Amino acid sequence: MGAFDLPSYLNARRVVVDEALDRLLPPDTATPPSLHRAMRYSVQAGGKRLRPILVIAGAESVGGTAEQVMETACAMEMIHTYSLIHDDLPAMDNDDYRRGMLTNHKVFGEAIAILAGDALLTLAFKLIALNGARAGDATLVSTLVTEVAEAAGTDGMVGGQVVDIESEGKAVSAETLDYIHTHKTAALIRASLCAGAVIAGGTHRQLDAMKKCGEALGLAFQIVDDILDVEGSTEQLGKTAGKDAQQQKATYPAYHGLEVSRAKARALIDEAKAALAPLGERAVPIRALADFIFERRS
Amino acid sequence: MGAFDLPSYLNARRVVVDEALDRLLPPDTATPPSLHRAMRYSVQAGGKRLRPILVIAGAESVGGTAEQVMETACAMEMIHTYSLIHDDLPAMDNDDYRRGMLTNHKVFGEAIAILAGDALLTLAFKLIALNGARAGDATLVSTLVTEVAEAAGTDGMVGGQVVDIESEGKAVSAETLDYIHTHKTAALIRASLCAGAVIAGGTHRQLDAMKKCGEALGLAFQIVDDILDVEGSTEQLGKTAGKDAQQQKATYPAYHGLEVSRAKARALIDEAKAALAPLGERAVPIRALADFIFERRS
Repeated sequence: MGAFDLPSYLNARRVVVDEALDRLLPPDTATPPSLHRAMRYSVQAGGKRLRPILVIAGAESVGGTAEQVMETACAMEMIHTYSLIHDDLPAMDNDDYRRGMLTNHKVFGEAIAILAGDALLTLAFKLIALNGARAGDATLVSTLVTEVAEAAGTDGMVGGQVVDIESEGKAVSAETLDYIHTHKTAALIRASLCAGAVIAGGTHRQLDAMKKCGEALGLAFQIVDDILDVEGSTEQLGKTAGKDAQQQKATYPAYHGLEVSRAKARALIDEAKAALAPLGERAVPIRALADFIFERRS
Repeated sequence: MGAFDLPSYLNARRVVVDEALDRLLPPDTATPPSLHRAMRYSVQAGGKRLRPILVIAGAESVGGTAEQVMETACAMEMIHTYSLIHDDLPAMDNDDYRRGMLTNHKVFGEAIAILAGDALLTLAFKLIALNGARAGDATLVSTLVTEVAEAAGTDGMVGGQVVDIESEGKAVSAETLDYIHTHKTAALIRASLCAGAVIAGGTHRQLDAMKKCGEALGLAFQIVDDILDVEGSTEQLGKTAGKDAQQQKATYPAYHGLEVSRAKARALIDEAKAALAPLGERAVPIRALADFIFERRS
C-alpha cells in the first residue's frame, strides 16, 4: 500500500456522514419545528465527525462498508452532540461558543436545549436498533445497544462528566483524573470504533484489538484536547480557549505539566496503533487517524 | 371470573417492580455516588408505577409473565422519571415538589439533575436491549427499542413537552391541545402496554388491540391529570396544585371546561376497555386499571 491520503479519506467520509445526518434528523418543518431546528443546529454546526468516521473505519477494518454502519455512525455523532449541548448549559460549563457558533441554549433557550439533547440521545438509540436489525442477529443488536448505553451512561460519559464537574477547583488524584478522561471521552470513542466492527461481523480477536486501540485513542484524544485548551486560541478552537484553567478543571497539563502530557499522548497513540496489528493493512486508515488525533490543532 | 381485586393486583406488582428497580439501578456507593444517589432519589420517590405495571399487564394479557418483562417495565419507569426530572428544572416548569418530596435539582443541584435524567434515559435503553435479547429475536429487539424511542423522542414525549412549553400563555387550538396530550403522556403509556405484549409474543391482532387501548388510556390519563390539577390539593397530589392555571398551560379543563373534560375522559376509558375485546378474560386487570385511572385522586 502506498502513502495513505488521510485528508481525502476524511473528507469523503465526512461528506457521506453529513448527507446521512441530514436525512436521519427530523425535518425542521415537522412539529415541533423549534426542537428540530435546535437538534439540527448543533449537529450541523460542523465538527470533525471523528466518532462517525471511527465507526466507519472500524467497519472497514474488518471488511465492512460505510453504508452498512451509517445509522450507527450518525447515532454516535448525535450522542456526542447531545453531550456537548448539555455540557454547555449554564448549570454545567456555561459556555457561549462551540465550534465557532453560539451554543444551543444561547440560540434556542435552555428548555429547548435540554430537550434537543434528550431527543438526540433518544433518536440515537432508535437508529442503532434499526441498524443492528439489518444485521439480523438478536445478540448483535443487544450487544450494540448495551455497549453504546454503557459508554454513554453512568459507567461512561455521564459518569465522567459528573466527576469532572465535581472536581472543579479541587486537588484531584491521578486516579480521579484518569477516571474523568477514560469515562468522559474515551468510552464513546472506543464504543464508536467497536460498534462499526461489531456490525460488520468482526471476529472476537478483531474486536479485542479494536477495544484496546479505542481505549488508548480516546484517552489520547482527551489529553490533546486539554493541551489545546492551554495552547490554542479561541479562534482556532471554535470554543472559548483557556476555559479549563479558568474553571480550575482537572486536566492532564494542570496535573502533569505540558511536556509530560504531550509524551503521554504520544505514547498512547503508539499503543493504539500497535493494538491494531491483528487487523493488518485494512487498519491503515485508523493508524493515520491516530496520528491525526495527536497532530490536530483544533 | 369473580370480582377482580385491583388493589391487591397493583400492590403485588408494585412490590416486585420496586425490588427490580433497586437491583437494576447503579448502587449509590459506586462512582460517581452523587449521580447514582440522584437517580435513585427520584426513581425511588414512589409514584404509582403505572407504566411498569402496564408493561406487566400487557405481557400477562397475552400469556406472559412479569418476570419475562421486568427490565423493560423498569426501563419505562426510568424514562418516565427522567422526563419528570427534566420537566421540573427551573428552565422548564420550575417545580420545587414532586411526589411530595423536593424535586431532584432542589436536592442535588441543576447539573446533577440534568445528568441523572440523561443517565436514566441511557440506562433504560440498555435494559430494554438486554430484555429483548432474552427473547432471542433480532426483529423483536429492534422493534422494542425503536417503538420506545419513538414514544420518548420528538415524535412522542419530548415533542409534546416542547409544544406544551411553547403553548404557555397562548390561545391554542383544540388540535394543538390534542397534540400535546397524545405526545407528552399518551405515547409512553401506549408504548408501555405494547412493549410487554411484544416481548411476551403477542399476535398482530393482540398488539393492535393494545395499541388502541393504550392510546385512549394515555389520553384519558392526561385529561384526568389536568382535572386533578384544578380540583386536587397540593397535599393530595404530592406536587404543587393549580400550577397549570398559574403557568397558563394548555389543558383540557382550560379549553373545554371541567364537565366536558370529565365526559371526554370517561368516553376514552370506555373506548380503551372496548378495544381490549380480542384479549378476553386475560385483559381484566387492564380494564380495572383503566377505571382506576379515571377514578384516582392523585
